[in-house]
This record gives sequence, C-alpha cells and structure tokens, in this order.
Amino acid sequence: MNFLSDNIVGASVPVLEALMRANDGAMPAYGGDDITRRIKARFAEVFEREVAVFLVTTGTAANALALSSIVPPYGLCMCHKEAHVIDDECGAPEFFMHGAKLAGLPGVGSKLTATAVSAYLEGLPKAIKQMPPKALTISQVTESGLVYGLDEIAALSAVCKAHGLSFHMDGARFANALVTLGCTPAEMTWKRGVDILSFGATKNGCLMAEAIVVFNPTLAEGLDYRCKRAGQVISKGRLIAAQLEGYFANDHWYDNARHANRLAKLLGDGLSQLPGVRLGWPVEANEVFPILPAALNRALKEQGVLYHPWTDGSLPANERVGEGEALVRFVVSFATREEDIRRVLDIARSASARQAAE
Amino acid sequence: MNFLSDNIVGASVPVLEALMRANDGAMPAYGGDDITRRIKARFAEVFEREVAVFLVTTGTAANALALSSIVPPYGLCMCHKEAHVIDDECGAPEFFMHGAKLAGLPGVGSKLTATAVSAYLEGLPKAIKQMPPKALTISQVTESGLVYGLDEIAALSAVCKAHGLSFHMDGARFANALVTLGCTPAEMTWKRGVDILSFGATKNGCLMAEAIVVFNPTLAEGLDYRCKRAGQVISKGRLIAAQLEGYFANDHWYDNARHANRLAKLLGDGLSQLPGVRLGWPVEANEVFPILPAALNRALKEQGVLYHPWTDGSLPANERVGEGEALVRFVVSFATREEDIRRVLDIARSASARQAAE
Amino acid sequence: MNFLSDNIVGASVPVLEALMRANDGAMPAYGGDDITRRIKARFAEVFEREVAVFLVTTGTAANALALSSIVPPYGLCMCHKEAHVIDDECGAPEFFMHGAKLAGLPGVGSKLTATAVSAYLEGLPKAIKQMPPKALTISQVTESGLVYGLDEIAALSAVCKAHGLSFHMDGARFANALVTLGCTPAEMTWKRGVDILSFGATKNGCLMAEAIVVFNPTLAEGLDYRCKRAGQVISKGRLIAAQLEGYFANDHWYDNARHANRLAKLLGDGLSQLPGVRLGWPVEANEVFPILPAALNRALKEQGVLYHPWTDGSLPANERVGEGEALVRFVVSFATREEDIRRVLDIARSASARQAAE
Amino acid sequence: MNFLSDNIVGASVPVLEALMRANDGAMPAYGGDDITRRIKARFAEVFEREVAVFLVTTGTAANALALSSIVPPYGLCMCHKEAHVIDDECGAPEFFMHGAKLAGLPGVGSKLTATAVSAYLEGLPKAIKQMPPKALTISQVTESGLVYGLDEIAALSAVCKAHGLSFHMDGARFANALVTLGCTPAEMTWKRGVDILSFGATKNGCLMAEAIVVFNPTLAEGLDYRCKRAGQVISKGRLIAAQLEGYFANDHWYDNARHANRLAKLLGDGLSQLPGVRLGWPVEANEVFPILPAALNRALKEQGVLYHPWTDGSLPANERVGEGEALVRFVVSFATREEDIRRVLDIARSASARQAAE
Repeated sequence: MNFLSDNIVGASVPVLEALMRANDGAMPAYGGDDITRRIKARFAEVFEREVAVFLVTTGTAANALALSSIVPPYGLCMCHKEAHVIDDECGAPEFFMHGAKLAGLPGVGSKLTATAVSAYLEGLPKAIKQMPPKALTISQVTESGLVYGLDEIAALSAVCKAHGLSFHMDGARFANALVTLGCTPAEMTWKRGVDILSFGATKNGCLMAEAIVVFNPTLAEGLDYRCKRAGQVISKGRLIAAQLEGYFANDHWYDNARHANRLAKLLGDGLSQLPGVRLGWPVEANEVFPILPAALNRALKEQGVLYHPWTDGSLPANERVGEGEALVRFVVSFATREEDIRRVLDIARSASARQAAE
Repeated sequence: MNFLSDNIVGASVPVLEALMRANDGAMPAYGGDDITRRIKARFAEVFEREVAVFLVTTGTAANALALSSIVPPYGLCMCHKEAHVIDDECGAPEFFMHGAKLAGLPGVGSKLTATAVSAYLEGLPKAIKQMPPKALTISQVTESGLVYGLDEIAALSAVCKAHGLSFHMDGARFANALVTLGCTPAEMTWKRGVDILSFGATKNGCLMAEAIVVFNPTLAEGLDYRCKRAGQVISKGRLIAAQLEGYFANDHWYDNARHANRLAKLLGDGLSQLPGVRLGWPVEANEVFPILPAALNRALKEQGVLYHPWTDGSLPANERVGEGEALVRFVVSFATREEDIRRVLDIARSASARQAAE
Repeated sequence: MNFLSDNIVGASVPVLEALMRANDGAMPAYGGDDITRRIKARFAEVFEREVAVFLVTTGTAANALALSSIVPPYGLCMCHKEAHVIDDECGAPEFFMHGAKLAGLPGVGSKLTATAVSAYLEGLPKAIKQMPPKALTISQVTESGLVYGLDEIAALSAVCKAHGLSFHMDGARFANALVTLGCTPAEMTWKRGVDILSFGATKNGCLMAEAIVVFNPTLAEGLDYRCKRAGQVISKGRLIAAQLEGYFANDHWYDNARHANRLAKLLGDGLSQLPGVRLGWPVEANEVFPILPAALNRALKEQGVLYHPWTDGSLPANERVGEGEALVRFVVSFATREEDIRRVLDIARSASARQAAE
Repeated sequence: MNFLSDNIVGASVPVLEALMRANDGAMPAYGGDDITRRIKARFAEVFEREVAVFLVTTGTAANALALSSIVPPYGLCMCHKEAHVIDDECGAPEFFMHGAKLAGLPGVGSKLTATAVSAYLEGLPKAIKQMPPKALTISQVTESGLVYGLDEIAALSAVCKAHGLSFHMDGARFANALVTLGCTPAEMTWKRGVDILSFGATKNGCLMAEAIVVFNPTLAEGLDYRCKRAGQVISKGRLIAAQLEGYFANDHWYDNARHANRLAKLLGDGLSQLPGVRLGWPVEANEVFPILPAALNRALKEQGVLYHPWTDGSLPANERVGEGEALVRFVVSFATREEDIRRVLDIARSASARQAAE
C-alpha cells in the first residue's frame, strides 16, 4: 500500500521484454542504431507530424534541456509557483539555461490561466534591468493532479504567441492526461500551440526513458549537442529506445495510464464518501489529494499506508485546510492493484466508523 | 566482426538478471532504496575504505560531475590533449565546471608523465589573467590503450600534491586496467593518491551504469546536489544500483575484463606477425592499434570487419605512419568471441598472403 | 528638480580632482599600482581590520561577484523579494553564481526579520531535489529607504551562523545608512556578523567605483580571478582607486551622505505635513516615499518635478494605497541643493492649497 | 622609459576634458542620456552604416560579451593560440559563452591565415561528441604587433561565410591598425565581412571605454541584456560616452595612434641597426619585438628601461631565438614622448658599443 509516487515501482513487463530483445548483438553506439531510428519514426506517427526527438534518462533532464533550447541565458521563463521545474529539480533548469530565471505564478490547482499569465506579462517592467520573458512552461498533469483542457492549452498558447514566447509542456504524466481528455497526442500539444514537450514515460512503465519532442523545428537547433554535453546521450542508446518501443506497442502506454487513472478515481470516490473527508481538487488523472481528519490520517499511517503530506498553496481560496485536518497526496501507478485500493478503502472506512463510534 | 567500440553491445547476462530481480515491488525513489544502499557499501568493500559514491548513467556525466567538484569555474584542469574529456564529450566538462578550462598536454600513447606535467606547471605564468591550475585528470586505460603503472600514477599524484591540485582518474575502462596490473582497486587509486574516480561499468557489461567514487570526502560536498541538478539522479534509482550488483557479484567484472584483454592480446599478436604490420602501441588492455598496409586495411574492410581509423598524434616520435599505411583501432569487448578474433586473423592472413603473392 | 535616483548626477568635485591627480605618469596596470595598494590599506583602516578588497565598476558586478564567492552553483541565497539583486540586475547574480537561485522573502519596508528568515529556513524541505540554503543578502539601505539597526543585523547574522550560511550586505547606499546609525563601518558590518560587503561609492559621489570588501578571508579565495574573468579588472586600475581616495579623504563620503540624508528628511517632513499626504515608510536615509493624492501627484509632474512611481508590495499591512493615491519615490543625492527641496515643497504646498480651495 | 604596455598611462587630455564637461547636471542613468545617444550616432558615422553599439569598461568584457552573442554554449570558437581571448582573460570568454570552447590555432606573427583556418575546419570530426564551430575571432593588431591586411581579412571572412561562422575582430588596438592600413573603419571591418567588433579605446587614450560594435544586427539581439547581467552597464553611463566623444573629436584618436605607431617605428628602426639585434616581426603598429643579445638586454634593464620578455611561439620557422638572446616586447603609447625613444636608443647604442669594445 505504497502511494508515495508513481516512480517507486520498476518497469512494466512489456517494456522489460522489449529491453531484453534489444540487448543482443552489436549496434552503433550513441543512438546511431536502428531501434533509435525506428522509435523516432514512431514518435512522428504518434504525433502525426515530423518531430525532432531526443531521448534522455530523467524528466529533470528532459525539462531542463527543453527549456535551455527556448530560453536564452538572460531570459525569463514563467511557470506555476509549485511547478516541478521550479521546486523539485534542484535548479536543473537554471543550470541548463545558464542562469535564466523561472518566475513562479500562482493559480488554483497548480494551474495557470491565460488571464493570469497575460496580467503578469502586462505588469512586467520593460527595462534593461529586468529579464525579458521568453517562454512559458506548464505541467500536464499539474502538480495538484489536474488536467489542462484543450481550450485552456490553446488560450495559454495564444498568450504566448501574442508575446513572442515559446510554449513548453512538462508531460511527466502525459499519458494520464491523454486518457483523461480522450484526445490524440497531437490535439493535446502542437495542435493547441505547444512548441516543445517533455514526454514522460518512466512513471508510466519504463525504467528510465523520457523524450524531448520538438514540434517547432527551429527550436531543435543544437539540442543534440546540448544533450551530449549534458551527459544525456547514453552510449548503448538502443536500450532507451527499446523501452519506448515496448511502451508504445499495442497501446501499452494507454492501458497503463487508463488503469492508474481508473484506480485513482476509485480511491478518490471512496475516500470522499467518508465523513469529514473532502478532496482538495477533483481526481482528473492518477493522483488523489484528500483532506483527511487527523484521526483518519493517523489511522491510515498506523496501518502502513504510505503517502505524502501536501502543501495547500494551490487550494481554492475557500478551501483552506482546517485545524485538525491534513491535505495529503496518493499517487496511483500502472502497477497498483485494485485490491490495494480496496484494502486502503477498507482501512479508511473502518477507522472512520470506529472514530464516529468513539 | 564489429570492433568499433566496447559500447556497441548490450549488457552481459548477470547484469541483466540482476536488473530483472530488482524490478519488482515498491521501493523509495531517487536512490533511497536498499539496493542503492547495498551497492554503496559494496563500493566501500571493493575500495577497502569509506567512499562517497554517486551513480550516473554515462561516463561523460561521471567525468564532468567529478571535475566540477574539484575545479572552480575560474580554474584550469590539465589532461592529455587527446583525452576523452577534452575531445569527445562535446564540452560537458566545461559546461559542468561552468567555464573552467581544460589544458591539453602532449605525451606518447596518450599518457602524461610526471615530468611533463611538472614542466607545464612551472612554465605557467602566475598572473590574475591566467587561470590557476586546480586539477589533473588522467584516463586509465589511456586513449591509446595503454595502462598507467602504479609508479606512474604515484608520480603524477606527487606532482599534484606539490602544487595543491586534485587528482581525477577517468576509469572508463577501469576493470581492463586492473586485470592488466593485477593489483587491487585501492592500489590503483587512493593508495597512489587519486582523489576522485569515474568508475566505468557500461563498457564492461552494464546497460548504463557509471559511478563517481570520491576518496577524499571533502571533495564530495555538494556532489549529490550537482548530480541532481544535472538530471543524473534517475527516479527508479535501484535500476542502476542493481546493474552494479550483478556486475560485482562473483567477480563478474574481472571475468569480463580479463576476457576482453586476453582476446585483444590475441588479436594484437596475430596482426603484428603479418608482414608490414606493426602496433602503434603495445596491447595493454582491450584495444589494439595496428598500423596496417593500405591493401590489408582495404581487404579487412571489404570483408566486413568494422573498426575506426585513428590519429597518430600520440605515436612515439620515431613511429610515424608512412604513406600507404593506416593507423586503426580495434576494441574488444566482454562480448567478443574468440572465434571472431580468429576469423579476423584468418581474413588478415589470407589477404596478406594474397598481397605478397601479387 | 530631478529625484529619479542618486545616479543621475556625475561625480563630486573632490573625487574628480583625485582622478585628475592620478592620471599622470606611468604605473603598473591591472591594479598593481601604488594608488590601488594605498586604497586597499585605507579600507583596512576604515573597517579597523584586515580585509580583502576588490574594486569594480558597478554595484551589480559587486553584488553578483560577492554572491558568487559565497553561494555554490547548486545553492540557494535568500533575499527580500524586492531586493535589487533579484529584481533590478537582469539576472547578474544568477549568471555569476552559475545558476544558483535567489529566494525572495516578504517583509515590511523591504526589510527581512530574523524571525521570518528563520521560519523560512525551518520550512524548507531537506531533500536532494531542493537547493540547499547557503547565504543571506540584505540591502542596507533597503529598497524602501529603511536602515537596518545594529541589533537587526546581529539577529540576522545569528540566524545565518545557526544554519551555516554566509551573510552578505548590499551597501549600495552604505554611507547613508552609516550616518543614520551614527556608528562605525566596523560596527555596521563584521562586528555584527556580516561576512562580505558590496561597498557602494558611485551613488554617493564617485564616477564608477564600487568595492567588494571581504571580512571572512576564506571567502575571498579566487575572487580576484572571478573579478578578472568577469571583465571587471580595468586595465588603468588606479583610476578607480583614485576615485576612492578622493571619496575617503577628509570624510568627504560622510559629508555627502549627511547632506543627502538631511535634505531627504527636509523633503519628507515638508511633504507629510500636507493634507492627504503620508509617508509609506519613515525617512531613514536619502529616500522619501510619500503617498500622494492624485491631484498633487499630477501637479508636481506638471511642474517638472521628476520621480518614480513605486510598488506597494512592502507597505505595512494597514497602509494600503487607496484609490486616487499614488506611492512614489524621491531620491536625494549628494548633489541635490537645499533650494531644490524648498522649490519642490513650495510647488507642493501651492498645489495642495489650490486643490483645497477648489 | 616604461614600455610594459599601452595601458600604464592615464587618459589623454581631450578625453579627460570631455569627461569633465559631461560631469555636471542631472541626466538619465544607465545610458539613457543624450551623450550616450550622441556617441551611438557618432559610431554610425564613423562606420558609415547603422550599427548597434554597447559601451563597456574593459576589453575583456567587450570580447567576452561579443563572443557570447555569436557562439552558443555548445559551440567552438577559433582563435590564434596566442590570442588575448584564450591566453590573457582568465577564462572570461568561456564564462560569458557558458562553457563554449576556444580552439587555438597556430600561425606566424599570431596571425591566422584563411588556408590554416580552412584546413582546421575540414579536419574537424563531424559528430555529436565534437563541439560544432560557430565563430572565428582575430586580433587586429595581433599579439605579435602585426596588422591584418584588408585582403587577409576578406579571405578569412570568406572562410567564415563558407562554413556558416560568425566573424569577430578584437580591436584592442583598432586605431593603430587603421592608421597603418590608411583605410576607413568601414573598410577594415564590415566591408571585409567582419560581423562584430570589440572597439578598443582605452589603450589609445581613454580611461576605461570600450565598445562592442555590431554590424550584423541579428547578432545584437539580447546583447543589451547580456551587458546588464554582466554588470557592465555603468549607472552614470554618460561618463563612458563622454570619453568617446573626446576620443573621436577632431580626429584625436587618429592622432594618438599615428603618434604611437611613428615612435614605435623609430624605436624598431633604431634597435634593428644595432649589431646582433633583429626584429621578431616587422613593426606594423605600436609594438616592437626585438631579439636582443643577452648583454644588451641586461644593460637596458639596468638602466631602468621597462619591457616584457616575450614567447617565441609565433616566430617564423627559421627565426628561432638563439642561446644568449632574448625576444622582448616594447609597447609605445599615445603618451610616449619622442625623447623617451631617443633616450632608450642612446642607452642601447652606448651599451652595444661598449660591448663591442670589450
């Protein structure tokens, strides 16, 4: 009953099998092999257009490298103030962007709105002493488990275009968002104005495989060199490519995401029916953010259910966490079993009933 | 018959099996797991002392991160002028060191001598406009396939100590050097004054697993953050640690290196007996650098033997490559089979005999 | 009647004269001259201890270089959220610190309190993905024209020591703060735990002369090289040193600051007596931040009085700027004449009276 | 008799006077003033075209900033192996270019030839692990005191265009080269394909005033922000602009350079007539590089003549410095008096005669 994150498990079976298959024989190193070539073509199919694809081993590297290709060292990149890039990557973006700055904007559910971004941009002083805005990055799924709708993405993109900014999507949980929206990868990205994407695959089934997908080809210039100088071009490159082959094959990635999202919904629905429990934000992907009474929180922990406490900085204004309550996060993964969810709910229901009785 | 490099093959079976075993179940992410803890303890055993260990996915990252912790941004780091760090890493060291400079020194067989390093240091102007020397890095095995002897390492280390420099070893082919010298890991490193090591494991059997091993603990300060901000802390961290468990178990790494070195010797001996063929440098590890007559070079290629042409910048002064000759490199790996070597030698002998007859 | 800033005027006469005197004859370049040697000794006298001194041409360079020597590239540096370093230097600190991050904390009057800094530090997650705090920087005078008291500095320093942080003071208006407190330079800095200081002299009378003063000698290591690689070691170095000789001679710097502070007080007192006018913060140095009724604001501008609008982010909670009011900033310099102040006050009084009559 | 460099003297009188004149009154800070506007227009006149101009305080900053705008962090910039940028700026270019690499090429008289540059470019491996060439920088006057002819500049520019490289000129001694060639600034720069120029003025009469002049406007994008984040935008900006006004007025800069060049010729001619003395390179600007017999070298030093020893790395192949000889450098400045030259020559002649007699 470990819900700490979706990277606490290993890889899924089809991914592992693809890796095994790719292991034999000699192939050119550094991504010059056929499997890498095939997977790049596969990305073009998945996104229904020519794309430039760069394979890396971590989401942090994908984000930092992507941003480094759209923000000059003297530029400003807007993000949500709780975004992974600004809060959880130990300054990787600033390192790769050579000192460019991330500006963290507020927004309910870790979501940025076109209105807020627009207002922020209007309010920026235009002087040599202020770094000029160059890009916007959003997380799809957001850090509060919400999914940007297609219209929201389009609206943000319109603001970017109006101000000459590049638009990046951190798709660490890309597949989870996709199955929620029921749209195509193309519809969720370049068809709505996204220029460059961190395509996450590790959390949803791979060992260590992430891709930077560039829709705007001029932004890809030099990115191959940037990856190499970041130590992100692994020598046995086929071993990342192969993971992604297993990931894409037979819609395995969709299946994994659908499974995680469904179980998250189940968990959220179950918890929110308990007395005194409400959800900080609706369950839109594979994360559940319940606000728990202290006693229930304690009981779950005592029974060995693992999850993280969460900050309330992105709750709606009228949704503060009260005294004696705790906002927490459960993350459901492709490997979570339905019985795990049921067990957690059983524990929660029992504890809740017992507490009501006391 | 592919001798282009030792990274053209996948992982060895024990490494893969260890990876499979580690894949199941939930474990803390980002290296907080038990396997990572175990492997760090294993490194301490292997090196017979307390060490700080950082796991990364590429040798380029290992080198660049290691150097970044011993060279300040305004410092100078000496290396051989053909060193991997200066020539083959697309500026990764300069990126991670934030603009610090690599000074490439000459030396036969891509080897630096204590005398040459000392002379270079004496000749450096001492002025604010010149970057102060801060570190020395050597490659063990060198780029010409030679192995630094223990006395040579100690002598270089003495120069470093005398000038207040840190001493780094790029051990991309650490195991191959070790079996050549027949010494312990400790003897080849900290017992001879090495401060920090890039411990290569990918070329010798892993998928993507390298370690930075720090013997001088003060140099390790902040290196964990440096790894994270470089996007080198993979989330499912156990999957690197597990590779190394398989690598170390039952002396598998020694076996792999011994195998490769033995076959390289076989290849070198066979080739050097052919008329008109001589070796640029002796075979001391798993690489062979023959100087081939043009006709033989052509014949081998026509028969599908794959290898790289090589530059002659590090040949001894009296060993220039003549007109109609080619210096080339064969790399033998743990996965090379003895029959592959025999086949190459057969092809070479036939071609040589045919050419003699013509 | 230009109150836009204290850098809109040239140098003061004694500074210029010192520059003229230093211009003749041949002297070693790059700061190897006697005047530079003398001025470094002078700093030691001024601060009553051995100090390391580095002369640069801008306050931005002084700050960025100072911070680069106390914050590693992966570190966090706390400052007020309106600090010059985070808001007005186009990312120079991030550039010189190689991507280290500035964390902007709130505080009334652009002042940080020991309590707030302490609370922030306690709240920081301790994980590899969060940059570790390494330094605190404060502005003396603050961006709202306030002066940290000696106890406040000592309290902040105590927090720094408790958390192993370095403590930097941006003394762009160092002299103005000094005459306000009536203490010695030593008392306002290292005797209260300041490790490193940006000593501003340009605003208070020089052409372009700032100094980084390092009290903690271990922090000075490599700072000479950092200055050089930043293009901040001017070749005719004596020409900066000479300015500072003129600046220090006969307490000229104290006179300049006292003059500016006195006139600022005069202006503040005069304005605050007008109906509907109040001060955002008390006048503690050479800046006045009145909140003006819109009509008065308009009248002053129409009469050619120049000053900047200001943001109200650092006002006390109960001091919001109302509809039809404007918070503005007047900066008084060493070159401002008392008659300029009187003229502004006359204009303001007339306008105010006229408006009352309407 | 100080010939150590041309930056050991102060500013020339007309420059100082212009500075004095500009000192009075209030003007916008950070280069928003009229004098700065005027000087930018003046540069456009001087170069007979629209140019983007950025004023900085050191040649190192000018070079490093200029290169940072034409070389991406992963790029390679070619220069002569003795160029100031690679040898005397403490890594400033690498800092500002964020780790991009300088490749030092050989060439007689510190001069690069189109043939040598072309050959170097052809020889570069084209692989992801090698940094791609992005720019060429030359020093006009070279580090050996030679002046590139217009055809030589055009030929280098043609190589740049053919390989898609930007072309930078380090004009630390721009005026000295100009009066040697007797051409216009336009002819020596953009009319021969130079994209961006470090326009030196400090050595030839200013206090601290250098300009980056950008002929190719797309290269100027963001350079204003780069200057600001480098701490190179001085707040009382008019004080740099004013120096340049004095510098340009009445062809003062030409006069200064003509004077220095003429006296250098006088010194070179005089020295080379002495027995056993020859010049390492012809005197083409304001520097003289004699190869002196040891006794003469000693005698000059004993008489208090100051100059630097020099390295012989750029001598023609048949011009090695013999045992008992010394290659040295004399730099003549605008402030050197003809009588100083005559005195040095008298001392040299006497010493030479005395030594012949012994």
